[in-house]
Amino acid sequence: MSAVVPTPVTTRPSSEEIFEAHVGGKLAMHTIHPLASQRDLSIAYTPGVAEVSSAIHADPTLAESHTWAGRLVAVISDGTAVLGLGDIGPAASLPVMEGKAALFRTFAGLNAIPLVLDTTDTEEIIETVIRLRPSFGAVNLEDISAPRCFEIERRLIEALDIPVMHDDQHGTAVVVYAALIGAARVINREVADLRVVISGAGAAGIACAEMLLNAGVRNVVLVDSRGIIHSGRGDLTEIKTEYAARTNPEDRRGALPEALAGANVFIGVSSVVVPEGDLAGMAEDAIVFALSNPTPEVSPELAAKYARVVATGRSDFPNQINNVLAFPGIFRGALDSGATRITPEMKIAAAEAIAALAADNLAADYIVPGAMDPRVADAVAAAVAAAVRAGDPGEVAPR
Amino acid sequence: MSAVVPTPVTTRPSSEEIFEAHVGGKLAMHTIHPLASQRDLSIAYTPGVAEVSSAIHADPTLAESHTWAGRLVAVISDGTAVLGLGDIGPAASLPVMEGKAALFRTFAGLNAIPLVLDTTDTEEIIETVIRLRPSFGAVNLEDISAPRCFEIERRLIEALDIPVMHDDQHGTAVVVYAALIGAARVINREVADLRVVISGAGAAGIACAEMLLNAGVRNVVLVDSRGIIHSGRGDLTEIKTEYAARTNPEDRRGALPEALAGANVFIGVSSVVVPEGDLAGMAEDAIVFALSNPTPEVSPELAAKYARVVATGRSDFPNQINNVLAFPGIFRGALDSGATRITPEMKIAAAEAIAALAADNLAADYIVPGAMDPRVADAVAAAVAAAVRAGDPGEVAPR
Repeated sequence: MSAVVPTPVTTRPSSEEIFEAHVGGKLAMHTIHPLASQRDLSIAYTPGVAEVSSAIHADPTLAESHTWAGRLVAVISDGTAVLGLGDIGPAASLPVMEGKAALFRTFAGLNAIPLVLDTTDTEEIIETVIRLRPSFGAVNLEDISAPRCFEIERRLIEALDIPVMHDDQHGTAVVVYAALIGAARVINREVADLRVVISGAGAAGIACAEMLLNAGVRNVVLVDSRGIIHSGRGDLTEIKTEYAARTNPEDRRGALPEALAGANVFIGVSSVVVPEGDLAGMAEDAIVFALSNPTPEVSPELAAKYARVVATGRSDFPNQINNVLAFPGIFRGALDSGATRITPEMKIAAAEAIAALAADNLAADYIVPGAMDPRVADAVAAAVAAAVRAGDPGEVAPR
Repeated sequence: MSAVVPTPVTTRPSSEEIFEAHVGGKLAMHTIHPLASQRDLSIAYTPGVAEVSSAIHADPTLAESHTWAGRLVAVISDGTAVLGLGDIGPAASLPVMEGKAALFRTFAGLNAIPLVLDTTDTEEIIETVIRLRPSFGAVNLEDISAPRCFEIERRLIEALDIPVMHDDQHGTAVVVYAALIGAARVINREVADLRVVISGAGAAGIACAEMLLNAGVRNVVLVDSRGIIHSGRGDLTEIKTEYAARTNPEDRRGALPEALAGANVFIGVSSVVVPEGDLAGMAEDAIVFALSNPTPEVSPELAAKYARVVATGRSDFPNQINNVLAFPGIFRGALDSGATRITPEMKIAAAEAIAALAADNLAADYIVPGAMDPRVADAVAAAVAAAVRAGDPGEVAPR
């Protein structure tokens, strides 16, 4: 059905190379101005620094401009939902959080520090981040398992006057929506008219549903391990109950095959394998985003038999749906504009900016820019900042 | 009485210069290996990083070698006792903590992150640091007011398997002892035989007393705002009661003049002014360390009328007693040697190493190396690590 035959574009590094690159960690600090003399010391430390501290004490808004905190992102995790590895704990999650901080630095020029917490208690995580608040200017929550991630994010957004975003939810959702804009254009359809099935109702699945609903998609169906989420189910968590009411307008029942029958889009954000037969039931010109890492829900080669556009989360196939397209620019745009929250409008602006960069060379195997595309973070930051300025002034704090 | 006429050695930077140097903060991050290609990304982040996380999950000791946490110092404050400014709060304390982190980087090559806490509750501070434990390899407590600082440090040392040190206590005490070694040699006396009066029984005063007692000084007298600390006083906190029993062997009573009568050493770590008449009562060849910043307890010029050796905390006079001589090397030595605690033996080794560097050129106006002396941190680190290796094996954890 498709002319797209994905082929690996890079070779995989060896374990030896990977471990070698991690010895001593991946991050380091430096001073912006060298401390090379007694005089330098008397500026950066006592007695000079006392003048700056006194000034901040008198006018707390100066903390943003005269410390590093104003542009510092805390990458916070409890290590309960790390990549495809699951609950491996905070220490084992640290290399991932260091990597995330390295991406913030590389793509957005933002400083970021990984903070991993030796607790999985929702209340303890919330109060710990609140207590640390004066130390940074934004919070990227990472790899915290559902459903705790929803409450932790919601409560921190309420409690803090700085941008807070759980990237596994919203970073994924932004790039999925960006890719869907491109894919819809490839098949000459409007995104809003597509019937979308999301396999997985954890952090990423719920956020994708929310994003697509906010973007005007009318027919979204969520499927979890027990089947289609519908309002007749008695086994739903609070958040799934909420989405049972807002999705599945045809009130479909059953499992993945029933959901996929006639659907335009499959978005896989669980690791549940999709049988070939299920894909065969999709509509013509189907779109398949098989995003589980490292093993997609269906191999891109197999998916290409039934779909016109195929995307994965992997760098070794075309159409990589990678959060790195979104989060560096989103946080930088939010910090640049003094936003105190990351709103749906800002996320939609981010997705549209990503999609716009692929528009000129759009093809079935190029629906989003590559992860290393140097234009992306700047474009996303600018779009997000513009959305803040165009938005509700209440979202912008005088800082 | 003295030939030492201290003179300013640097000019003071202007406020404009100080504020300019703080715009955007003083710290920044970088990645140790650049993320310049898709392949770099697949090593530092997904999918490669999963191998490292899995390995740490299987063997937690690998977190020390394969993340940055193993050599990362958290500089933690609640902003309650900042420089001479007092309780200015966490946000206003941040420039000082950034400066401290910059000193760790500059002098010891260690990464350090400032974390300022929006709570002054002892239990909350302790539990917050414990929850953050997997994020770093050592804890430098900073500018936390007495008496809470004593309990916070003690409890964190007990709870954590990494070095924890409240620098306002022990950094100061180490450099004071180092300077006293040099000063005693200048006047041809043994440190242990000196009668020492410490004005101030807060964090620094108590720690200096502890240090000197551990170093064998037999006659130490602490003086707080209500006078000499002796066992007959009914107004003492728990910690002062402890030191009332261990100091003041002659059971002196009264105020500072009674303490100083015939004393060899005055150590000022309060901001209480010392009248000229009190100094006049000290023994011949007196030693005066007037360490309050920015205003010493007595001006060096005035002190020199009565003392043979004068030191201050200021960089614009000779004999600056500056914590930067101690803490970078102490933490690096502790981390180099895998120490899980910072013991009295390690602190004494640090002080002796600092003193040894001044020994060759010892003079009344050169009893410790200068704050910028590039030899100091390495020498201190080596001495501390040697003390760990020579010490109780129980102090070294297999990490």
